Amino acid sequence: MGLWDVDKIEYVGRTKGPQEGLAFHYYDADRVVAGKKMKDWLRFGVAWWHTFNQELVDPFGTGTAHRPYYKYSDPMDQALAKVDYAFELFTKLGVEYFCFHDRDIAPEGDTLRETNANLDKVVDKIEENMKATGVKLLWNTSSLFTNPRFVSGAATSPFADIYAYAAGQLKKSLEIGKRLGAENYVFWGGREGYENLWNTEMKRETDHIAKFFHMCADYAKEIGFDAQFLIEPKPKEPTLHQYDFDAATAIEFLRSHDLTDVFKLNLEGNHANLAGHTYQHEIRVARENGFLGSLDANQGDKLIGWDMDEFPTDLYETVAVMWEVLQAGSIGPHGGLNFDAKPRRTSFYAEDLFRSHVAGMDSYAAGLLVADKMNRDGFIQDLMAERYSSYDSGIGATIENGTATLASLEEYAIDKPQSELIAATKSDHLESVKATINNYIVDALAEA
Amino acid sequence: MGLWDVDKIEYVGRTKGPQEGLAFHYYDADRVVAGKKMKDWLRFGVAWWHTFNQELVDPFGTGTAHRPYYKYSDPMDQALAKVDYAFELFTKLGVEYFCFHDRDIAPEGDTLRETNANLDKVVDKIEENMKATGVKLLWNTSSLFTNPRFVSGAATSPFADIYAYAAGQLKKSLEIGKRLGAENYVFWGGREGYENLWNTEMKRETDHIAKFFHMCADYAKEIGFDAQFLIEPKPKEPTLHQYDFDAATAIEFLRSHDLTDVFKLNLEGNHANLAGHTYQHEIRVARENGFLGSLDANQGDKLIGWDMDEFPTDLYETVAVMWEVLQAGSIGPHGGLNFDAKPRRTSFYAEDLFRSHVAGMDSYAAGLLVADKMNRDGFIQDLMAERYSSYDSGIGATIENGTATLASLEEYAIDKPQSELIAATKSDHLESVKATINNYIVDALAEA
Amino acid sequence: MGLWDVDKIEYVGRTKGPQEGLAFHYYDADRVVAGKKMKDWLRFGVAWWHTFNQELVDPFGTGTAHRPYYKYSDPMDQALAKVDYAFELFTKLGVEYFCFHDRDIAPEGDTLRETNANLDKVVDKIEENMKATGVKLLWNTSSLFTNPRFVSGAATSPFADIYAYAAGQLKKSLEIGKRLGAENYVFWGGREGYENLWNTEMKRETDHIAKFFHMCADYAKEIGFDAQFLIEPKPKEPTLHQYDFDAATAIEFLRSHDLTDVFKLNLEGNHANLAGHTYQHEIRVARENGFLGSLDANQGDKLIGWDMDEFPTDLYETVAVMWEVLQAGSIGPHGGLNFDAKPRRTSFYAEDLFRSHVAGMDSYAAGLLVADKMNRDGFIQDLMAERYSSYDSGIGATIENGTATLASLEEYAIDKPQSELIAATKSDHLESVKATINNYIVDALAEA
Amino acid sequence: MGLWDVDKIEYVGRTKGPQEGLAFHYYDADRVVAGKKMKDWLRFGVAWWHTFNQELVDPFGTGTAHRPYYKYSDPMDQALAKVDYAFELFTKLGVEYFCFHDRDIAPEGDTLRETNANLDKVVDKIEENMKATGVKLLWNTSSLFTNPRFVSGAATSPFADIYAYAAGQLKKSLEIGKRLGAENYVFWGGREGYENLWNTEMKRETDHIAKFFHMCADYAKEIGFDAQFLIEPKPKEPTLHQYDFDAATAIEFLRSHDLTDVFKLNLEGNHANLAGHTYQHEIRVARENGFLGSLDANQGDKLIGWDMDEFPTDLYETVAVMWEVLQAGSIGPHGGLNFDAKPRRTSFYAEDLFRSHVAGMDSYAAGLLVADKMNRDGFIQDLMAERYSSYDSGIGATIENGTATLASLEEYAIDKPQSELIAATKSDHLESVKATINNYIVDALAEA
Ligand SMILES: [Co+2]
Ligand SMILES: [Co+2]
Ligand SMILES: [Co+2]
Ligand SMILES: [Co+2]
Ligand SMILES: [Co+2]
Ligand SMILES: [Co+2]
Ligand SMILES: [Co+2]
Ligand SMILES: [Co+2]
Repeated sequence: MGLWDVDKIEYVGRTKGPQEGLAFHYYDADRVVAGKKMKDWLRFGVAWWHTFNQELVDPFGTGTAHRPYYKYSDPMDQALAKVDYAFELFTKLGVEYFCFHDRDIAPEGDTLRETNANLDKVVDKIEENMKATGVKLLWNTSSLFTNPRFVSGAATSPFADIYAYAAGQLKKSLEIGKRLGAENYVFWGGREGYENLWNTEMKRETDHIAKFFHMCADYAKEIGFDAQFLIEPKPKEPTLHQYDFDAATAIEFLRSHDLTDVFKLNLEGNHANLAGHTYQHEIRVARENGFLGSLDANQGDKLIGWDMDEFPTDLYETVAVMWEVLQAGSIGPHGGLNFDAKPRRTSFYAEDLFRSHVAGMDSYAAGLLVADKMNRDGFIQDLMAERYSSYDSGIGATIENGTATLASLEEYAIDKPQSELIAATKSDHLESVKATINNYIVDALAEA
Repeated sequence: MGLWDVDKIEYVGRTKGPQEGLAFHYYDADRVVAGKKMKDWLRFGVAWWHTFNQELVDPFGTGTAHRPYYKYSDPMDQALAKVDYAFELFTKLGVEYFCFHDRDIAPEGDTLRETNANLDKVVDKIEENMKATGVKLLWNTSSLFTNPRFVSGAATSPFADIYAYAAGQLKKSLEIGKRLGAENYVFWGGREGYENLWNTEMKRETDHIAKFFHMCADYAKEIGFDAQFLIEPKPKEPTLHQYDFDAATAIEFLRSHDLTDVFKLNLEGNHANLAGHTYQHEIRVARENGFLGSLDANQGDKLIGWDMDEFPTDLYETVAVMWEVLQAGSIGPHGGLNFDAKPRRTSFYAEDLFRSHVAGMDSYAAGLLVADKMNRDGFIQDLMAERYSSYDSGIGATIENGTATLASLEEYAIDKPQSELIAATKSDHLESVKATINNYIVDALAEA
Repeated sequence: MGLWDVDKIEYVGRTKGPQEGLAFHYYDADRVVAGKKMKDWLRFGVAWWHTFNQELVDPFGTGTAHRPYYKYSDPMDQALAKVDYAFELFTKLGVEYFCFHDRDIAPEGDTLRETNANLDKVVDKIEENMKATGVKLLWNTSSLFTNPRFVSGAATSPFADIYAYAAGQLKKSLEIGKRLGAENYVFWGGREGYENLWNTEMKRETDHIAKFFHMCADYAKEIGFDAQFLIEPKPKEPTLHQYDFDAATAIEFLRSHDLTDVFKLNLEGNHANLAGHTYQHEIRVARENGFLGSLDANQGDKLIGWDMDEFPTDLYETVAVMWEVLQAGSIGPHGGLNFDAKPRRTSFYAEDLFRSHVAGMDSYAAGLLVADKMNRDGFIQDLMAERYSSYDSGIGATIENGTATLASLEEYAIDKPQSELIAATKSDHLESVKATINNYIVDALAEA
Repeated sequence: MGLWDVDKIEYVGRTKGPQEGLAFHYYDADRVVAGKKMKDWLRFGVAWWHTFNQELVDPFGTGTAHRPYYKYSDPMDQALAKVDYAFELFTKLGVEYFCFHDRDIAPEGDTLRETNANLDKVVDKIEENMKATGVKLLWNTSSLFTNPRFVSGAATSPFADIYAYAAGQLKKSLEIGKRLGAENYVFWGGREGYENLWNTEMKRETDHIAKFFHMCADYAKEIGFDAQFLIEPKPKEPTLHQYDFDAATAIEFLRSHDLTDVFKLNLEGNHANLAGHTYQHEIRVARENGFLGSLDANQGDKLIGWDMDEFPTDLYETVAVMWEVLQAGSIGPHGGLNFDAKPRRTSFYAEDLFRSHVAGMDSYAAGLLVADKMNRDGFIQDLMAERYSSYDSGIGATIENGTATLASLEEYAIDKPQSELIAATKSDHLESVKATINNYIVDALAEA
């Protein structure tokens, strides 16, 4: 069977009954939906950190994960062995992309130079495997948050030596991205924020990180690395307050620091919830403002206040996400659905890595099928068109075409009685809309 | 068409396509599922306060609701007219139960005596309509929270006159319950709690309300009113902290005040969320402790911190609720699914009252169908049986049968190596379980 | 005693003991602190809506407030009488500013024209009282959220007639602001957001409201009304999601719609909490970005998910707010501390309006005294200067002066061992910082 | 200076100014307050796990802590060395109690027998140090949550072997408690709960743990270990839902499983917040029901959804806690204030262990001083007495003495007009109450 004791995952449709966990019920990679193959809409990616490095620890417990490569005790041996395990897993799942932090794939040395040397050895092996399998790098990134030197930030550290180190680390990471043909490059500022405002010069820190991003953009240009740069917002955790709180905050930062040409956003479902938003909201904000870059597909529990990074199985959420993607035409210019997700700590067998990816892939494939059916029927489009129709002509058109003034609108409205105003205000029948979405889920998936 | 400009709602199955909002897709009242008619599993009830009195106000806006009986301006005229509207709505929806607070159905007078006189007139008319239609009273209750006299509580008011008034009000309410054959009687203590601990004698207040409940039980016995008494927990809102915080807290109160013979619980989905729980959790706690009484079927938004009382449309939640009900055999001894729910403020046409009940009824009917399919397959039962099998014999059996001691267990375990202990610990494959539930939803509803 | 049965509130310092609730312990209007009179730092304002119109209702209860002018039953009579009560309250409290919505001060007619006529009568009387007392208008605003016509928004309503009506209403409101010499003009978009994304064209709606703001700015210029325009962010409630979620989101909107010249922000403590932020955070974001406009001084309860609008008494929060104000030099160009706050529903006597303002004014005066003492000692400044000192020269200076590149920083860092990097990273002794702030509170107020 | 590069911490009162972080400003151990020495009211304890073992990791970063004993690389060597460091720290802080989990003090072996042998060696050394210094064991406990074998619980594990192992582990832990004279024994069920209800037999699991507690009580009796047993509630984290959700839930469990004679509660501030409560609420619930056992003194951030275990510095909270303790007469029969708290990850010097304990001790000492002043003045007592006075005679007395019935109360109330009822309802002047507490804080600490 290879390194993993699991067969290649096959699409079986609905023939094997509801309880089959090691086959695709909805994800049929080459099936054409809305003009593209499913795999081209979804562009699934595996996250190296969770899938290969996550031992399933939590703040009150050590790792529970069973992983076959734990037999390698030397860090470099294990790092190199994982490459083989990784590409076999990609292939068996039929996932065509992966993502990693620099620190995921090779151990640190005492200096950046030594660390970079370790990195190069693993990157060599990854490059070979990419060629051999055709699996591509959706994005890479740099861990500027794990090591204690980053305790108070990297590009927002109050300590210039740390900033300098982070810059050097980033330089290498961009070079690796270039070498491996990364389609995007992600910045998640887990420590870029504050623990306490009383000791924080917020503006100075955000100016520092803006300069950092400009240096990165300059260097990428210099070396001809044309990946799409992406910021990944998160409101808090580990930091009490992170500067990239949510999509709107990140866009504000990009606008006020002349970075809109270079950056788009990588949006994560669980981060949306921690910021008080739905995942659909964050994607809508990014999409409508031209900042949709890529997606970290996972889910949280809205009754829980920390980042759970669960594999996504909530069909309401996958339908909403894929609806937004259908409207956008794609997940950003080069985006994909990276499973920034880990099995639950109680789901710790090696086999559960496959089970959980299958659950996530199927859930997103289902979301695509449902969104496509709603789209073909024009259900949402019709509802919207009718709801906003008063702006298509008459007084509404003067508002949209810029000829209206307060005075012209006052004149229009000043003698309208309350009854006429109330009559102009329509019910949205929201409960029927929600029931209709339920019906679409059943109908689209029953016919899948 | 009658008083409401809506036809009787019919079951059409899946023939009218996903967008039909004024017909049942899943709720087929007389269809037998798991040995009982759907209507007997579900026992739907309409909540008078939301459906007939709720003007769709919120803290920042006045009412938006369009209701045909707003043409009656005299309070008693309107109260009496509503009875006709109510019973036509029940009949057109095919709902066989309703619920009300004393203050929902008739206006207050200046004294309790005058108020009671108003009540009697409306109760007369309700009684006639019940006889004529066969619609029954799931439960009644008393509003001990709206009037300013209850600002600091009723049975926990620091002011004895208010307590006395509440007792008098309750007496009348029990008499009405008896007269109308209420199957349950509900106590929701919206003001029974505290705004601030610094001025609150908590124990004294909870002792007061325990005495109040005992008086109520005594009086019910005296007049031969044998309805099941129910406490409805809610953690807060309007009060900063309500004493009946959640199911466990309410059960603790009942146990410590000798009230377990008299009371069970009426559980609401949105209240569960406000207390940090899922609806399924609250029902499970009540069910396994013998306190499941009835259900206030609604849903909240877990990102929102107040009580939204939305009509329930989340199939994950309705499946979980109906699973618990299937295991219990019924919703308590006399319980039902009362829609303690209002249309959204933007869904304000009279017709939306029908649309929203249809959405709610269909969602719960769907939940029943899915839970039943899982139950027939033994999916959860098998999973549980295997998971806990180590308690069925051997050392596990000594734990359950009470023969184990710390010493006997120490002896069993003291020389087991870590590898054996880890081998005894099994993965729960949680992601596959969740994906399987998705599959059951689609399969059960596609074949519905 | 006048209309209110309360004497003028006097400053007594600490002579009357801790339990005196109807005298100022810390607020001494003309005392000079940090170069300005207390009253000029604080510029307290009374909010007409809460203080005179709030009946202390909540979603489960009717009003509890006792107010002397409830004896006036005709709406216009009551509206006119309230003007006298208002100005006597301002004077007895020694508050020099007030704020109102158009709908606070006069009842609506059936048409905007009739409504405006009502408004004019009350504005006449307000203007007289302003002249007589010297009390000034901190800001006025327009209620585009209470009436059911605004159920789905005003400037983001899907219904063009409602937009037009809102524009007409705003025109009148700006004219009143001009006439009464309002120093600011506030826009709070309580309904400008969405209830559900599935029926919302978010971008179209936000474009509509941007046009609306431009029309308002044009008209203000046309009539020579030079008040500072302010947006007041709030994340939700009444709307599920409000577009002006928080300070950063509002600034992003202003930047992307060419409105930064015209608008600053009015920030509220309770709204900050509902968005997941501290009040200090929101003020810092606005201050450092040049958008600090004015403050709605109130507080929330962070365990509660709705807007409580409590009078502010938390000294930790008032110290933090006044610290930010001291650093800014003032609360925006024309800002003040408007008590967007109501007594608790249990604190319902007329006298409690005075008690609660006194509590709020004293708490902010105390905050100013503590912040000033910390400022004079240079406590925070020293801590910051040391913390960021590595950017003042050497490699840090190259980062700040723009000469650094990834390559130059890599060269600096590449051979630094981990030990040196850790040594460059300093502890922030955060627990001592918090204990020191406690000490400053005691010391500053003991010597007050 | 000894092992730690810090001098013994002295009480300096307010002479060293607000910025001194390494001296007590309020904690004067032998000063008599309310009839007892401060140290006897407060009974401070140091938590071994946080103070000596916590490396200041978080879910996204490795340890930042600088600790002098990290020079010992062998686990047993380090464990033994820490004992010396611990007792010097206790002595220099003047803390007379400590607390530990079995796994805090010695490394695990491969079997329980080997682990117990490791434990014994360290316990020998601890015992010697206790004798030499007079420092006592406030409580010990057992870690049934860190090791992967406990992933799905210990006494609620679905796997009987794990239950047996936990029982054996607990037996040893009780023996150690007996040997070291622990005054209490704590059970925190970090894994006793569920990750998902779909695979959980909740009642079976809670019955299992109840049996476990009975076995523990039996064994303690058998060996003559008479410590007070304590359950420590927490609602979630690491587990999605923990069975001991809050004080009320834990009391309900104790009542329904015949464990009230054996157990009281150990309450933690941060856990209270995670359950949606204030710390004062949880203590009040325990106190008034006779279950106040001991306190884990720490604080959370109410805007943060995970357990921060911050050192307590919020004076509002320490005042409220010490008020409850003053009313109770002591913190339970043998309780103390255990600092279940860690310095922030950014506060990582060895010295910060001292700074953070000083901040916490001073904050609780300040809380005691303020609560005592309010108590001596009778401020709260008077307010309560007046508020509830209507129950002291007349109709109120009939309610409290059990002679009232619904009928007798109806008769009393039935003809009372609304005006009389409203007159019987008094304002609580809540804003003045809060301002008064502010005044007490300043006055009590200024005269300290
Ligand atoms: Co992510
Ligand atoms: Co995440
Ligand atoms: Co309810
Ligand atoms: Co509710
Ligand atoms: Co405000
Ligand atoms: Co507010
Ligand atoms: Co604890
Ligand atoms: Co904790």
